[in-house]
Amino acid sequence: MVDAAVRPANAPIVEATPAIDVARVNDLLMGTWGDVRRQAREMIKDSAFWRKDELGKDEHRERVLSQLHLLVDNKAVHRAFPKRFGGEENNGGNIAGFEELVVADPSLQIKSGVQWGLFGSAILQLGTEEHHDKWLPGVMDLSIPGAFAMTEIGHGSDVAAVGTTATYDPETEEFVIHTPFRGAVKEYLGNAALHGIAATVFAQLITNGVNHGVHCFYVPLRGEDGVDLPGIGREDDGLKGGLNGIDNGRLSFDQVRIPRTNLLNRYGDVAADGTYSSAIDSPGRRFFTMLGTLVQGRVSLDGAASWASALGLHIAITYATQRRQFDGADGQEVVLMDYGKHQRRLLPRLATTYAQIFAHDEFLQKFDGVFSGRTDTPDDREDLETLAAALKPLSTWHALDTLQEAREACGGSGFMFENRLVGLRQDLDIYVTFEGDNNVLLQLVGKRLLTDYAKQFQGKDAAALAKFAVGMTAGKLFHGAGLRQLGQAVSDFGQVSRSVERGLREEQQHDLLAGRVQQMVADIAGRLRAGGKDKALGARLFNENQAELIEAARAHGELLQWEAFTDALRRIDDPQTKKVLTWLRDLFGLQLIEKHLAWHLIHGRLSMQRAAAVSSYIDRLCARLRPYALDLVNAFGYEPEHVRAPIASGIEKQRQDEARAYYADLAATGKAPIEEKVLKRQKR
Amino acid sequence: MVDAAVRPANAPIVEATPAIDVARVNDLLMGTWGDVRRQAREMIKDSAFWRKDELGKDEHRERVLSQLHLLVDNKAVHRAFPKRFGGEENNGGNIAGFEELVVADPSLQIKSGVQWGLFGSAILQLGTEEHHDKWLPGVMDLSIPGAFAMTEIGHGSDVAAVGTTATYDPETEEFVIHTPFRGAVKEYLGNAALHGIAATVFAQLITNGVNHGVHCFYVPLRGEDGVDLPGIGREDDGLKGGLNGIDNGRLSFDQVRIPRTNLLNRYGDVAADGTYSSAIDSPGRRFFTMLGTLVQGRVSLDGAASWASALGLHIAITYATQRRQFDGADGQEVVLMDYGKHQRRLLPRLATTYAQIFAHDEFLQKFDGVFSGRTDTPDDREDLETLAAALKPLSTWHALDTLQEAREACGGSGFMFENRLVGLRQDLDIYVTFEGDNNVLLQLVGKRLLTDYAKQFQGKDAAALAKFAVGMTAGKLFHGAGLRQLGQAVSDFGQVSRSVERGLREEQQHDLLAGRVQQMVADIAGRLRAGGKDKALGARLFNENQAELIEAARAHGELLQWEAFTDALRRIDDPQTKKVLTWLRDLFGLQLIEKHLAWHLIHGRLSMQRAAAVSSYIDRLCARLRPYALDLVNAFGYEPEHVRAPIASGIEKQRQDEARAYYADLAATGKAPIEEKVLKRQKR
Repeated sequence: MVDAAVRPANAPIVEATPAIDVARVNDLLMGTWGDVRRQAREMIKDSAFWRKDELGKDEHRERVLSQLHLLVDNKAVHRAFPKRFGGEENNGGNIAGFEELVVADPSLQIKSGVQWGLFGSAILQLGTEEHHDKWLPGVMDLSIPGAFAMTEIGHGSDVAAVGTTATYDPETEEFVIHTPFRGAVKEYLGNAALHGIAATVFAQLITNGVNHGVHCFYVPLRGEDGVDLPGIGREDDGLKGGLNGIDNGRLSFDQVRIPRTNLLNRYGDVAADGTYSSAIDSPGRRFFTMLGTLVQGRVSLDGAASWASALGLHIAITYATQRRQFDGADGQEVVLMDYGKHQRRLLPRLATTYAQIFAHDEFLQKFDGVFSGRTDTPDDREDLETLAAALKPLSTWHALDTLQEAREACGGSGFMFENRLVGLRQDLDIYVTFEGDNNVLLQLVGKRLLTDYAKQFQGKDAAALAKFAVGMTAGKLFHGAGLRQLGQAVSDFGQVSRSVERGLREEQQHDLLAGRVQQMVADIAGRLRAGGKDKALGARLFNENQAELIEAARAHGELLQWEAFTDALRRIDDPQTKKVLTWLRDLFGLQLIEKHLAWHLIHGRLSMQRAAAVSSYIDRLCARLRPYALDLVNAFGYEPEHVRAPIASGIEKQRQDEARAYYADLAATGKAPIEEKVLKRQKR
Repeated sequence: MVDAAVRPANAPIVEATPAIDVARVNDLLMGTWGDVRRQAREMIKDSAFWRKDELGKDEHRERVLSQLHLLVDNKAVHRAFPKRFGGEENNGGNIAGFEELVVADPSLQIKSGVQWGLFGSAILQLGTEEHHDKWLPGVMDLSIPGAFAMTEIGHGSDVAAVGTTATYDPETEEFVIHTPFRGAVKEYLGNAALHGIAATVFAQLITNGVNHGVHCFYVPLRGEDGVDLPGIGREDDGLKGGLNGIDNGRLSFDQVRIPRTNLLNRYGDVAADGTYSSAIDSPGRRFFTMLGTLVQGRVSLDGAASWASALGLHIAITYATQRRQFDGADGQEVVLMDYGKHQRRLLPRLATTYAQIFAHDEFLQKFDGVFSGRTDTPDDREDLETLAAALKPLSTWHALDTLQEAREACGGSGFMFENRLVGLRQDLDIYVTFEGDNNVLLQLVGKRLLTDYAKQFQGKDAAALAKFAVGMTAGKLFHGAGLRQLGQAVSDFGQVSRSVERGLREEQQHDLLAGRVQQMVADIAGRLRAGGKDKALGARLFNENQAELIEAARAHGELLQWEAFTDALRRIDDPQTKKVLTWLRDLFGLQLIEKHLAWHLIHGRLSMQRAAAVSSYIDRLCARLRPYALDLVNAFGYEPEHVRAPIASGIEKQRQDEARAYYADLAATGKAPIEEKVLKRQKR
């Protein structure tokens, strides 16, 4: 069906409407590394990179391995590596190009992420020059396919608790890598079932009877003869919910000995006599520093998920502008996109996707700043971690939600594999729990928000705190002070819709979204304070507030996205384009406010009247945006070779036109049968 | 992995807690046809009925076909057929037994639904005795595998608009079945790609130049030689997002001639000379009567989806009571189910699943009453249709949501195919758009609610209407009259949590849920009234209110579920069990109220204070229910042969115990390395 899907391989489908500047919007969306993105998209127009849906797991795995070699041939995956090995030391561009692979095949994206983004990055980021010289060339040219062995069956999110041990033996100057119990088996590792010949293994480093915590070791898995080395155990994870082009599996180690120098020793080393040394004194900070160097996985998932959402919406919205179902008032069948409910299903998700893509570019700039060394302070690293933990959950959940809504909006066609939506959703499913479980990540963000909140009071005296407490109460429940501050109570008694729109513009959206984050964090902090120094009570209180803390973190991420979208608006000159994109930003902001409307009401941030108007304002925005829907998805810049979904190829319009022509012809030639009900009416 | 999954094949996993009467709750859940459900569950303990995940599409299709023969051998699928052919004329029991197949393999469920529930039912319900005699025996024993050819590429939900024609030719006394354009090709039909040798085809019946609307025809597809008959076109739909054990495909007809008597003529007939006759005068009513006989598909999807949710929760909650992650205040790793957020993720969904299973049994009773003829009036049929259109969307969406949350709650393990969750979700995906697109069905419910609403005013005079309008306004925006009626404003200034709990018990929950449906419908009706007789304006207004009408329909369905749950409570005698199930019902009610909290606030149904307390009340209910979580999923009655998910087999507890024993042993023998941070603390 590939032919049908890609044909007609010419201009994108457009509707005859007052247009926006699609090229300019595309530039904005492609972002800072647009050139690399365009290069990657051009490369994957070659069908050799495409997913072949009909392949079974085993053939799919082999195809993806061969595609990895194609990526090497195309110099598509070396951008982040050191120049002395032929890389570009271009961290941002590397991630941008990597993300684009998702529309070729998410298995290809993630398997190349395993090889160069995880296995390769561990050597690059955690190893030192000797390690780079020895292994990076083989990693880069894929002569050393490798696994990244961090997660264990027993421990996913809590990496510090992994059970694998690396015990130093000074007699032979070797580390003994060992899996002490079944739960410590390394699990879900790409390249582990079949292709990996080495692995970067995270294990508890034990020397001289002291456990120095988790460190990373380079462990060969296979000898020259291609046979697994003694003590190496492998199991195949078999079929998964998606990403079946990747050979995920388990690795276990039965007293496997590796040279002392295979410890990737950038942040901690063991001398020949077994003495441990590290430039970072605190074991906790050392652990987080090591993990922090691997943040790029989260960065890239945020981008890949956002672009997958974009592709899903391109397909569903293109189809919705062609597909007709049920007669309208004029007796003609109505195009799906003209239904109020259909607009409500797709357009807010389109707005969110825009916001995420804009937010992602800022995130990528931050990442590039840190990893290039330009803006690499501990604070920058911490901000980057927090940003990753805030944005990756939102965009990956959004991708699943959007791809599902897109599939449902295309009905049975959406369920056909050839139309891409189900396959993308299956593959992206795991994005919400790997590289950090989304809920665990948001909890990290929440804790950071609490810490930042507490910092405000450092060094302040009791009087200042008391004053603050009063301020909190005044802004809280049932008092309406918030309302008076915003002047809503007065202004809302005018003409409803216009006045309400004026009261829900940029500044008010920001106040509402930012105010919610601040208030939620302050409220939670207040409730946690009761724990004092009682550890058990503290844990209980934290648990009682866990769900809300995660909500506050989500609100924080949403605010960041809203701000990124708003910043992007300032970079548009064409007034018509700016107007339409502003509506889209408003739609993003208002659907966030609608989602949490009860919160804004209870906390006195919105008057009843204004709150009651939010939903109808969203409806009006959807109706205004409707004529630009196709422009807005065309601005994603996907070409037929990227879309490859027959229903978004124009085939649906052809079919509908053919049917309409058939009936018109019947009527014109007088051959149409008369409808029984018309006949009955005539007889009466 | 089947062995690991099913072992230990003995008692279900239990926690040592004050228990509820699990057997009694299981009886309630199994419902009116519990005996048939138990019989079906016993049958599918045989691994011959299980899905084999490793099979590719083609082998999976053949396996499912062979399983259909097994169903025949087990007399598992004939319960609804006439006694004279060996059936039982037991409509409710038939559906109950059929639904249970979903835990064996949803492909098996749906393919048997195609054969006996759609193809067979069309002959049974739309045909007459001659047709029954001729074809039902072959349908029942599977010597005539058949397709149900209703949906077309161009028309899914709008069946009345299908393009296929059946034109009567009096000269030969034949109907000519024809596909006039590509959009009229029959699409997504199970048994069409491979196995079907006949089809029940829905086409516009044209005779003597009059189109009498859609009727159903029995069309042979293959001759005795197994070769497709002249004019029959078949295409294979290929890979789908799920249900790949079914050979879905397309059928087209190029002037295919069938005998006049192949019209399934129960509701409309054509005489040899071409004269049309029907006992139902109105073509519209005739069409809906014919379609109405096929409601059982929706009935069975509601049940199957609810039980699939139950299985997903059984797996995720069992795992969550064993899996530990991150240290608690006591230094021990915490069981997932003890986390506040984890409870929030799984327990409200458990409550909803209970509500749906109870509502489904009432629905099934209604269905059985109509189809047995016991309570078969036009009103009963209309109520049944509405019930189907209200409940099927809610339960099928809930299944996708629940299976996804369950998969995420199991982390990477949830993504492994062997643990069932991803496979079930993929297979059930299409349930939300087939047998009636969920949004289209809810819109039907919404229209029915509007009609019923309008009926209240039939024959009333202007004064009554005016009085009613005043009543509406008084209960509406910004007035707080609703609050005073409920006495909330006064009672809520007492001690917060207890008073709020008292104010959110059964009666208040019902008032809030029912009040919302009534108010929404009244509001929408009021806004639509402005359309008057202006068709175009009416269509525009309807479109503007479409999303909200669908919401009102959803609220109606939720209310029915809540009422069914509440009725079930009255059938529990054991006080402890009743208390726990009442909490669960409260959790269901309150999470519905929480979801629409802004609505209740804006419409003056809840005071600010009471609204602010809803979420924390839900948290308290989750904590109270936590000790009973395992009992509540064990009450679904699934045995290891139904669950077949290694992570829910006890394997996780074994692994966690093994790891804890390993560390305890190390500590006891003094061999444990000292932690670096502990060492540092000692040195200070």
